[in-house]
Amino acid sequence: MILRSEVRRAQERTMELFARAGIVLTAEERERIEVAGFGLGQLEAQGLELITYSNTDRYCAKELVLFPGQTCPEHLHPPVGEEPGKMETFRCRWGTVYLYVEGDAAPDIRAVIPAGSESHYTVFHEIVLQPGEQYTIPPGTKHWFQGGPEGAVVSEFSSTSRDEFDIFTDPGI
Amino acid sequence: MILRSEVRRAQERTMELFARAGIVLTAEERERIEVAGFGLGQLEAQGLELITYSNTDRYCAKELVLFPGQTCPEHLHPPVGEEPGKMETFRCRWGTVYLYVEGDAAPDIRAVIPAGSESHYTVFHEIVLQPGEQYTIPPGTKHWFQGGPEGAVVSEFSSTSRDEFDIFTDPGI
Ligand SMILES: [Zn+2]
Ligand SMILES: [Zn+2]
Repeated sequence: MILRSEVRRAQERTMELFARAGIVLTAEERERIEVAGFGLGQLEAQGLELITYSNTDRYCAKELVLFPGQTCPEHLHPPVGEEPGKMETFRCRWGTVYLYVEGDAAPDIRAVIPAGSESHYTVFHEIVLQPGEQYTIPPGTKHWFQGGPEGAVVSEFSSTSRDEFDIFTDPGI
Repeated sequence: MILRSEVRRAQERTMELFARAGIVLTAEERERIEVAGFGLGQLEAQGLELITYSNTDRYCAKELVLFPGQTCPEHLHPPVGEEPGKMETFRCRWGTVYLYVEGDAAPDIRAVIPAGSESHYTVFHEIVLQPGEQYTIPPGTKHWFQGGPEGAVVSEFSSTSRDEFDIFTDPGI
């Protein structure tokens, strides 16, 4: 459970990071910034803030915010019906993102795995994104990501989002 | 024909507008900013600058720049094979865009139709986009757009781009 006051505060911090990144939202969008705690009740450690610009049956675009050290937990996007899993391009707009996908593990990763959840993080191929840098995650690939020391603002371009089908490594999500 | 020097200058102006909008490109991206004159040889009046971030078989994302008063000529995106035409969401990031689509014509439009090309502009339903505002153009709908007094930076989120199939109203394109 995340308190309503905590959601409000997270929305305000999100707007501060958007302002630093030069990103403008309408008043209507500001009201519907999503604060995702993934049911873990530890938003600072494991959470994500986002605004969905457009999610049609053909494509999706979102703006994501990670606070410093905040982690979006490991998950993958499975096929849905006839369609392959969601494909995502993450483009860093501001700050730093540490992104982890399947593949050769980095010997010493830069992110700090959320304490107590170590067993729910299993892929460690490291990609560090600075402003202007991007990475495309193929469908069905496990991934997780964390904001750097100042946090991060990340544009997500993707195929249609169907979040209810996402498979998280942590069975508590 | 656009001179090589004119392309370079347009790329530089594009980078200036990106900087004002807080948009960062990599060195590699800066080198491949596209300057589209549509074969009309009057880039200032009819043209578009853009960088394609990602164009996969599932979605596409670009950043567009219009100089002050510069117009992207009227066109539509037809079906390609089994697929409906390209669907596009334009999100204004900086400046002002005057966008025209099929529908009730505005009595007095804000854009200035490029001189000598009046007959190639036929749709006048006006949408004015300021930073944070966006509009989605359905497949197969004629549209054109022009940069306001300071120009514009516009994010385009869309289904796959197959520009070679675009149908322009001007037979000279
Ligand atoms: Zn994902
Ligand atoms: Zn178009």
